[in-house]
Formats: sequence, C-alpha cells, structure tokens
Amino acid sequence: MTFESRPSGRAVDALRKLTLTRNYTKHAEGSVLIECGDTKVICTASVEEKVPGFMKGEGRGWLTAEYGMLPRSTHTRMDREAAKGKQSGRTQEIQRLIGRSLRAAFDLDALGERTLKLDCDVIQADGGTRTASITGAMVAAYDALSKLVAKGALPAVPLKHFVAAISVGVYQDMPVLDLDYVEDSGCDTDMNVVMTDAGGFIEVQGTAEGAAFDRERMNRLLDLAQAGIADLITLQKQALGLA
Amino acid sequence: MTFESRPSGRAVDALRKLTLTRNYTKHAEGSVLIECGDTKVICTASVEEKVPGFMKGEGRGWLTAEYGMLPRSTHTRMDREAAKGKQSGRTQEIQRLIGRSLRAAFDLDALGERTLKLDCDVIQADGGTRTASITGAMVAAYDALSKLVAKGALPAVPLKHFVAAISVGVYQDMPVLDLDYVEDSGCDTDMNVVMTDAGGFIEVQGTAEGAAFDRERMNRLLDLAQAGIADLITLQKQALGLA
Amino acid sequence: MTFESRPSGRAVDALRKLTLTRNYTKHAEGSVLIECGDTKVICTASVEEKVPGFMKGEGRGWLTAEYGMLPRSTHTRMDREAAKGKQSGRTQEIQRLIGRSLRAAFDLDALGERTLKLDCDVIQADGGTRTASITGAMVAAYDALSKLVAKGALPAVPLKHFVAAISVGVYQDMPVLDLDYVEDSGCDTDMNVVMTDAGGFIEVQGTAEGAAFDRERMNRLLDLAQAGIADLITLQKQALGLA
Amino acid sequence: MTFESRPSGRAVDALRKLTLTRNYTKHAEGSVLIECGDTKVICTASVEEKVPGFMKGEGRGWLTAEYGMLPRSTHTRMDREAAKGKQSGRTQEIQRLIGRSLRAAFDLDALGERTLKLDCDVIQADGGTRTASITGAMVAAYDALSKLVAKGALPAVPLKHFVAAISVGVYQDMPVLDLDYVEDSGCDTDMNVVMTDAGGFIEVQGTAEGAAFDRERMNRLLDLAQAGIADLITLQKQALGLA
Amino acid sequence: MTFESRPSGRAVDALRKLTLTRNYTKHAEGSVLIECGDTKVICTASVEEKVPGFMKGEGRGWLTAEYGMLPRSTHTRMDREAAKGKQSGRTQEIQRLIGRSLRAAFDLDALGERTLKLDCDVIQADGGTRTASITGAMVAAYDALSKLVAKGALPAVPLKHFVAAISVGVYQDMPVLDLDYVEDSGCDTDMNVVMTDAGGFIEVQGTAEGAAFDRERMNRLLDLAQAGIADLITLQKQALGLA
Amino acid sequence: MTFESRPSGRAVDALRKLTLTRNYTKHAEGSVLIECGDTKVICTASVEEKVPGFMKGEGRGWLTAEYGMLPRSTHTRMDREAAKGKQSGRTQEIQRLIGRSLRAAFDLDALGERTLKLDCDVIQADGGTRTASITGAMVAAYDALSKLVAKGALPAVPLKHFVAAISVGVYQDMPVLDLDYVEDSGCDTDMNVVMTDAGGFIEVQGTAEGAAFDRERMNRLLDLAQAGIADLITLQKQALGLA
Repeated sequence: MTFESRPSGRAVDALRKLTLTRNYTKHAEGSVLIECGDTKVICTASVEEKVPGFMKGEGRGWLTAEYGMLPRSTHTRMDREAAKGKQSGRTQEIQRLIGRSLRAAFDLDALGERTLKLDCDVIQADGGTRTASITGAMVAAYDALSKLVAKGALPAVPLKHFVAAISVGVYQDMPVLDLDYVEDSGCDTDMNVVMTDAGGFIEVQGTAEGAAFDRERMNRLLDLAQAGIADLITLQKQALGLA
Repeated sequence: MTFESRPSGRAVDALRKLTLTRNYTKHAEGSVLIECGDTKVICTASVEEKVPGFMKGEGRGWLTAEYGMLPRSTHTRMDREAAKGKQSGRTQEIQRLIGRSLRAAFDLDALGERTLKLDCDVIQADGGTRTASITGAMVAAYDALSKLVAKGALPAVPLKHFVAAISVGVYQDMPVLDLDYVEDSGCDTDMNVVMTDAGGFIEVQGTAEGAAFDRERMNRLLDLAQAGIADLITLQKQALGLA
Repeated sequence: MTFESRPSGRAVDALRKLTLTRNYTKHAEGSVLIECGDTKVICTASVEEKVPGFMKGEGRGWLTAEYGMLPRSTHTRMDREAAKGKQSGRTQEIQRLIGRSLRAAFDLDALGERTLKLDCDVIQADGGTRTASITGAMVAAYDALSKLVAKGALPAVPLKHFVAAISVGVYQDMPVLDLDYVEDSGCDTDMNVVMTDAGGFIEVQGTAEGAAFDRERMNRLLDLAQAGIADLITLQKQALGLA
Repeated sequence: MTFESRPSGRAVDALRKLTLTRNYTKHAEGSVLIECGDTKVICTASVEEKVPGFMKGEGRGWLTAEYGMLPRSTHTRMDREAAKGKQSGRTQEIQRLIGRSLRAAFDLDALGERTLKLDCDVIQADGGTRTASITGAMVAAYDALSKLVAKGALPAVPLKHFVAAISVGVYQDMPVLDLDYVEDSGCDTDMNVVMTDAGGFIEVQGTAEGAAFDRERMNRLLDLAQAGIADLITLQKQALGLA
Repeated sequence: MTFESRPSGRAVDALRKLTLTRNYTKHAEGSVLIECGDTKVICTASVEEKVPGFMKGEGRGWLTAEYGMLPRSTHTRMDREAAKGKQSGRTQEIQRLIGRSLRAAFDLDALGERTLKLDCDVIQADGGTRTASITGAMVAAYDALSKLVAKGALPAVPLKHFVAAISVGVYQDMPVLDLDYVEDSGCDTDMNVVMTDAGGFIEVQGTAEGAAFDRERMNRLLDLAQAGIADLITLQKQALGLA
Repeated sequence: MTFESRPSGRAVDALRKLTLTRNYTKHAEGSVLIECGDTKVICTASVEEKVPGFMKGEGRGWLTAEYGMLPRSTHTRMDREAAKGKQSGRTQEIQRLIGRSLRAAFDLDALGERTLKLDCDVIQADGGTRTASITGAMVAAYDALSKLVAKGALPAVPLKHFVAAISVGVYQDMPVLDLDYVEDSGCDTDMNVVMTDAGGFIEVQGTAEGAAFDRERMNRLLDLAQAGIADLITLQKQALGLA
C-alpha cells in the first residue's frame, strides 16, 4: 500500500497535542494527567518510607512502577485484570519497561531508604499508552521528589536525566512519529524509544509485525524518535516551570 | 463527644456539591464522571450483545457491575488488586451492591439478549465511593440504553425507576447526610441507602461501628437519606436533560 | 399474590424450632451445633495466643470469622470453594458480617493479645444460614472465653452485649419472621438484622429483590426482627445456663 | 520402646467402635455420618446427570471424590483451604485415593452418563480420616445408587464389590489395627489398606516414618488389615440392611 | 489375556538398562542424569544454608523435593504447570513421595541448619519416572553432601541407608519388574516400592487399576521389587565409586 | 573501567561454540538441544491439530511459545514457577518474544488449522538463554514441519525466512558479541537482536542498564549482531542438512 496521508492528517514527524496536568488528584505526592491526543493516562507517584526487604539497611532507595487500563478505556471492553486474578503478560512487560526507564532518570542511591511507586492508569486509550505513561510518570516523580525537598527530607531532587518516550512506526511503508490507534493497528513495524535529555538511549524496542525492516529504515525511525523526544522533554520542563 | 459542627461546615442535611459529566471518555456507550465533593468516580456502561451462559436463549437481558479503586485514589497507597491477584471482600461486596441496585432500575426482560456491564473506577476517594458509583452508573446506563434506542435496537429505554444512593451516619452523636472521609473515619454508625424516584427502598445497609443504634436514630437517618436521594435524582434527571 | 399461609404453617411472627448443642466437637475451645429448623451450622471458636501483625504490642485482642458450606449442604451440589481456589463474593460478604457482628459483642481491648477465630460451617442449608451462624457463634465464643476465665487467663468474660441475628422478609406481600428456603426463594424483600440484648441495632441489611419497599413495610419488618431476636437471646442465655 | 498397651486400652487387633448413620443430611442422594471412635466424617454422594467432557457420548458413568477438613476438626486450628486458595498436597492425595477406591466398587459402565460425586468432610479428626472416608462413602454411594434404582433409572445397583479401608501400623514396635491420633503421631510405620469383600486388595500404601520395616512385619500388618476390613464390610452391609 | 512376552522382549525380572551420569549440569552441588531405558530424569541437589521457619534454631537439617515434567517429555504434549498456575495432584503426590523416601536415606539431624532441595525434572518419559527420580536423586544428594564434606562443612556424609525405587506390576496376568510405558498403560496392578540397602521397606504403594489382587500376587511382586532394588543400589554405589 | 579482554578470552566479535543436536528427545515432532557455550536449552516443537477458539474455521495456523528454566539451571536455585503458581514477568516477556520471532519465520496461513507449540526449557544457564531459545526453536520447528511434509500433510515447509537471535552489549565500555553470564552481569547495555537470513530485523530490544548509549554505539552493536546472526543461520542450515 502506498502512503498518501496519515489518518489524522498530521505530518509524518508531528507529535499529537500533548497536555500535562499536574496535581490532577489530591492524595498522591505527584499526580499528573497526561493527554497525548485521545490517549489519557493518570500517572501518580507515591513515596513510601521503606525499601524492599533485600535492600534494607543499605541506605539506598528504590523505584517501581505499575500499569493498568480501565476496562472500558478501549474500543471494546477488556476484562478487568483484578477480576481475572492476574495481570497479562503485556501488562507486566509494560510496567517493567516503565520501571527501568524511570530508574534511569534518578540517582536512587541519593534517595535514602524510600521507594517511589509509580502508578500509570489508562483512562482512555488511543495508541501509545506505554510511552505516554513514561513521559507522564517522569513529571509525577519529579513533583513527588520536589515535595521531599520542600519539606527538608532531601537536599535536592536527585535527578540524573529527564527521560521521555515515544513510539515510531512504519505506516503504509512510511516511517511516522507518534502512532495513534488506527496507525498502530495497521502498521508493519512498531518501535518504542526512551531517551534522555542528553540524547542517550535508555530503551529501544522495535518489532516487525509484518515484514522485517532494514538498517536504513531503522535509522529513519530513530531520527524521528530522537526529534520527538527532544520536544517532549521541553514540554515536561515547561510543565514543571523549569524551562 | 458533643457535636459542634461538621468538619466541612456543611449543614447536617446538606449534600456535597455534585457534578455529573456525561461522555467523559469516548469509547464506552455510556461514560460519566461523578464528583461528590472530592470523591471522583468514572462510571462507564458497556453494551455486550450476549448474556451469560445460564440465560442463553431466554430472550432476556442482564446487568452486572465491577468496582475498583486506583491505587493512589486514597490517602495512603493501596496495593493494586490486579497485582495481588484477587479482589478484596470489600470490593466484591461493593460491586454486588452496585449490580443489585441497578438491576432494580431497569426492566431487563425488555433489553433483549444483551448484557450491560457497569464499571465504576474511583480515581479520587473522599468517602461515599460506593453510593457515588450507584448514582453515577445510573446516568451512564441510561445513556448507553438511549444509544440503543437511537440506533433502533430498542423501542424505548426500559426504565423502571431512577435509582440513586447516599450514605448517612452518626457523627459526634449527630445524624448527618453524605459523610465525607473525615466524618466516615470517626463515625459510630454508617448507613448506605439506595432508593427509587418513587421513594421506595432498594437497599438499606446500616452498621454500628461503635455503639449500637436505636429505632429513633434509625428513623432520623432514613429521613435524611430519603430527602438527599430525592435531590440526587433531580440532579440525575437534569444532567440527562429529562427535568 | 395474596398471602394465605406460610409453607411451613408457621405464624407470621413465629421462629423455627431452635436447638443449640454445646461441645458438639471436642477439639475447639467453643463448639456449637445450631439448628434453626432444617438449617444446621457447626460454629466453633478457637483461641490463638497472638494477634495480626498490625496490632502486635498493643495489648488488645482481635476476632475474626470464616464461613463455608459443605458442597452438598444445598439442594443441588455446589462446587467446593477450596477446589475452585477462591471464596465467592457471597462467602466473603457473610464472613465479614459475622466478624463485625461478633466484634460488637465483646470488649476486645480486655482480651489481651489473643485472636478469637470463629468458623461457621453449614452442614445443611434451609434458609437463614448467615443469621444462624451469628446466633450460634455467639454461644461458641462465650464458651471459649469462659474457658480462658476458668483457667485464670482472664478475670471475666469481656462481654459487652449478647448479640443474635434473624432474617425477616416479605413473602406473598406479607411481612414474616425467620424465612426458610422456600420463602426465601420466593420473597420480594429480604432483610437480615443483628441486634443486642439491649435492643440496639448492630447491622440492618435489607434488599428489595423484586419491588421496592416503603417505610411502613420497613417498620413492620424491624418490629418482627426485634421480637424474634429477643427470643433468640433468651434461648442463647438458657443454653449457657445464664438464664 | 517396648509395647505395654495401647493408649486406648484396645486389643492390638481391635477396631474402634464404628457407627454409620444413614440419611444424615437431607439434600444429598446418599448421606452418611461415619464415626470411628472420635473420628467423624460426613460422606455424601450426589448424582449428576452428566459426565466430564472427555467421556461425553460414550454412555458410561464416572465417579469422583473430594475431601476436606473443617478448620477446627483438629487439635489446633488449620487454615481453611478455601481461604488459602488451594488444596494441600495431602488433601489432593487423599481425594485421589478415595476416588480410585470407590471406582473399584462399582461398574461405572452400567451407570449411564452420570457422575457420582462423593464428598467426605471431616468434622472431628482422631486418626484414620481417609480410611473412614472410604468406608463411609461406600455406604453413601450405595444409597445414592439405590435411589436411582427405586425411581426406575437403573435396573440394579451396579455393584462390583463392597470396599472398605483401614489403617494399620507399628506402635512401640507392635503391629496394631486402626490407629487413633495418639498412636498415629508416635508410630514408626503407617499403612492404609483398601480391600474388597472378596478379599482382594485395591490399594496398599505403607510408609516407614521412622525405621524401615521388613517383609515379616509387612505380612503381619496385612493380616491385621484383612481381618479388620472383613468386619467393616459386615458392618456396612448391616447398616444397609443387606446382612 | 494370556501373557506371551513383554513388549520389550525383557525377561519378567529384568530391569531396563540404567545409566547414571554425574555432574550432568554445572551449577548444582549434585547433578545426575538418570536414564532407565527411555525414561530420562535430571536430578539436582541444591544445598541451602537455612531451614524452614518452624525448624529455626534447632540445629537440625531438612530435605525437600520437587518434581516436574517438561511439557513434551510425553507422547502428547501436557500443559505446562507453571502456565496453568498450579501443580497437579499427581505432581504433588510424587514430590511428597520423593521427599519422604530421601529423608529416610540421611540423618538430617547431623546435617546442621541446612536444607537439601532435590529437583527431579523429567525430560523424556517412558514409564517409571517417579521411581527413577528417587534412584537418581539418591546419587545427586550423596554428591551434594560429599561436597560439604570436601570443604570441611561436615565430618562425613550423614548416610543412614542407600535407597532406591522400582515399579512392579501385573501385565497380562504376569507379574513383571520395571514397567515401561506400554506395560504401564495396559497393566492391572501397579506397585511402586522404595527400599534400603539393608532390605527394609520405606514405601509400598500398590494400586489395582483393574481387578483386585490377592496376597500371593502381592508376595510375588514384592519379591521382584526386592531383587530389582538390590541391583539398583549396586549400580548407585558403582556410579559413586563406592563399590 | 577500561576493557582489556573478555573473561572467556574470546574476540569481541566471536560467538561461543554452538552445537545443535536434533532429535534430542523422542516424543516431540521436533526436538533440539542447543548449546551456546555453557548455555543449554531443550527446544521442542509439537504439532496440534487445532487452533485457538478465536481462529476456528479460518483455515489458518498458529504458533505459540513457552519458556521455562529448571530451578537449578542457575548459579543459585530459583523457585519453581509451577510451585509458586505463576510465571514471572521475565518469563512471560521471553515467551512472547520467542513466539513473535518464530511467527515471522513461517507462513502460518499455509499451515492449515494447526498449532505449532514451541517449548524452550533451559537446563543450564550461562547468559543468552532467550536468544539461544529462538535459534534452537527455529530448527525444532523446521523439523516438526518437515515431518508434516513427509507424511503428506503439507506440500512443503511454509518457510518465510530462517530467523536466529543473539545478544550484544557493552562490556567495560567495549561493544561485544554474544554475552556470557559474567559479561551480562557486569555490562552497561544489553541488546537482543532477532534477524532473518535476508538481513531484516524482526526484533531489536536494547536496554541501558547503567549509562545511556548513543547512536554510534548502537550502530556498532547492530553491526556485531548482524554478523553473528549470519553465522548462526549458516549453522542452523548445516544442522538441517540444507547448506
């Protein structure tokens, strides 16, 4: 199939409209609603004053993430994982990815014996929920750590890098940035990329759904992701009043 | 302890501010955000064109409900039920209550072989999440059924009664309407009441947390609930453009 | 349908024959077989010399309850919950109710760091198993605590109130006391009431299975329950040699 | 340790007092309370008019068994398997043994497409619960099948053999019949034997808990079991009015 | 059916070819591949420097066993137990048997506060996997304990007896030793026997699959097992360089 | 840390010694032992003459994969997933990866309504178990499909591409091919790559464990992987007698 245009009319290298609403719910230390087009995820960061048993007494902190989708965040209703009694392989894969990505953002050794728990709950899905979760959780985590600084529990936010994530893919034989659901369902190659504000890669996960992809194609996809993530990180910093 | 005033300053018979936002998410046939003060619940109604196995071939419909809380909807983070691999007794009790209450609202025999699935997910909790779920799910279910009417699948919404729910309780020895979290934590008696727009009771669940309560006290609590629910049903109908 | 007579021929305000057999099994500190007509439940009370982790070191006691039905206690065989690997929502709801009711009967602060575990196992079901469980467990718990007094571990049974429970309902448009299975299957409204010997309410759980019920009807049901429970508590005290 | 006498004062080859109460509960097609001394088990037999999927359409019947212990049937309270969410290895081993033993008693090919479900629930344990379950379930199953004959669904009870079971063991270096709990806890060798009324073995399960046992000892144990089971089968037939 | 010859052509009292390969994998303290004809089991013994909670501080050791089959170790693929989320009753029965058998081989009181964990994983099944597991695990356990001796953690291997296991059965009305899969599927009686090098019985588990068996038959089966196990123990000792 | 040499002494672009043993076990349609240095995985391919429910009647085939590790395949013993009652997130991630990779190798539409089940069970782990599983499963799947061809069930093996997988990573700041356990534990970046014999990418999964990696580094890693996979595919074809 030859590419004519994206279903949304966006340019091949255009992000969807991004909104970051801080303090979205009132109990969590950090709470962000991230909207990437029609994808909406509530990201909360909770500080617990303890670490898992295997780290006790070492003076270092930990960060862990969980991910979920409301049953009707999707086109047709999904079964509720709590009712089924287990999380799917997909859910576990995603929450492991979010955790690894955010552990790269902070210097957990400087956090003290605390655990930062990130919860990313999708309330409306339109493609890219895992990358939106990472981008939103970054802001929620920053807010939660800033509160620890504000109350004197930490000298500074132990930031290593800002991190953000985006998907890229090949839609109708054309590399495009930030796939929405329609594109994602029909694409040949799907790649999720997590990068730092210094331009380093944290994660690259590319999958050929249909035809295998070659090096040249891969390079083009990475170019798109790199540019998109730079924009996302600017938006994160603006939302936090840091830029 | 002698009652002086409610922590919120509300009158003893005053509801919290109620907001009903219809079409809150885009995929579900009915989708409502209900806000009762700081309690916020997303209620979606999904129509499935089948019934459970034991009802197959009987031509009648079914309605079922599920309930969940985001891990950080509460003051301190709760474990995610999907991660623990089971729903708590409290969760199951609540979703059974929501299901029974809404089955009283509609004539399911007239629904055809369809199942209405109601999902009530608490995104912020400040007391009264189960009663807010019922009140919000009523509107979401009405919307979902209206869509079936609009596309010609049903001649009319098979409504029996509007139903709504509220909590009442005894705070500092004073019967009060619509307990928030602070009142709920400290109250002696807690009662959840579900009623129809005809003033009939669907459910009454009263529990003495501390001292047992007498008949007179019970009568006063039921009076408060009856008045509160009448107001809630007016608000439901207004939200739906029916009043 | 117009009421003519109850299937059992009982008066509308008549309890079924109640038998309480103490020391029914030999190992438990308290062990009671309660028979309410054809409903038979073995209620045991076990004393454990520890409390749940979250209460350790506070010097106070705890009480918890579990409920089960033998697979063929019912008309058609139910699946065994241990084989299915989980307790149903109904089971969890009932055991939470039994626990709350019995915690209202005793001053657990005076129990020391002990847990009273109540097991209510239905060996034959004919309606009213949850209320029979509460009424029987009261006697088993009293026996278990009396043994602690007898061996000098407690100065006195830390009794706050005797509690007992009964169901009431609307059968063929007539409020009746103590529903058996035939009545329960066909009734419109079903209410379980737990009260103390001082006439206070501990729990009221009323459900309209068919038509909603009005205040007057509710008052009549509470009158029936109140009288029935007074009789049950007299029988409990007689069984224990206290009256 | 040298043997002087059994804790119960019984002769080495004496069974405990056995009582078989038929129609113990009212719903099951067969329902027997078996009491072997202080061991008490409710055995019910339920007839279901279907077979497992893999046997459908073959015209043959099936028989399966389940086993459970009430939490306080034992000296110290055991955790409830339904609450733990799984049956122990011991429970599964026992219910597989009961099933195999009873499948040897009946000609299931002559049962039609029906399943006989045997439930053995221990209400008081004092050693020998698995063998009591088999002996009691035999009578319950016979009763259930007799009811099918009585209502014309079967021409005759499809009996192959009566089966019964007993434990034997080595207590203080002395082979004894029908171990009670005190003997069982202290014995070196424990053997459960299931036999037919024709004197054939169905199951022999011997375990050396302490010292290994030799052939001579094994022969003595089998002699004891053979005589004990002959007596048990006589008692089964008397209970059923067949002898 | 009259016996003519065994499918394999073996004599009625002939074992299959046995191979014991020590140090089969490199990480475990003891690791043995046992091959009994076409049955192949990897048996590893792992030493852990701790005991279960209930034994802590008593200075004694513990031994436990687990058993599994690779999904395609069998003629048709079995579901993976890890994917199903539970071990079958058969698996649990077998691993309990292996544990009991090997606990009889060693003086665990002399092991110190250590746990020996035996894993028996069937990579190819052709009958007799549980008895092969016991025979192979004996060698793996001996190797693991020898390593503790070699590094000075124990003065000597705390051996009580060598143990080995074999199956016997009645195939076409003929008692035979060491059943392979074809014989096992068609046999009437199946018996697993575990014995020590002193000729004592540790376990005897005989089951009549079809017709019940008599004492004479049982005696013949035990004779076959006794001779076979003596040969197996010689092979174990040769493999370990002890004979 | 400056790179001096690999722990194994291998060149930075050298694979470990690879052995592929076909027909390793006798029951499976395809059965391969793959050894990559000290990593050993049994890969079996089973053909089932049915497809999952959602594909029934469409005439197309399916392929799915499962992965497991023997408890003592690792340096210290891991808990058995079947005993814990669930597969870890890591296991699920790996088996999803194997499935996706092998579905890219074959034209499943041409397979008919059959499912190819691939089981990859690690018997000894020394790094790279997931990539070895993919490389070995390719050969096992090819063998299983060749058997279908041999018996006339398929006209030809429905091959799209040969696929193989390898890990690459950054060890002591040096990009290296085919990490063993020692390198894997200490490396900064770890990337698993799956490619076809046409040089196309099927999967790229790169993770920065420590420092983020830049584009140049990524390119070098992909170069190493590309060369290594070409060699692996040659070895696969040789093992199958196709080259």
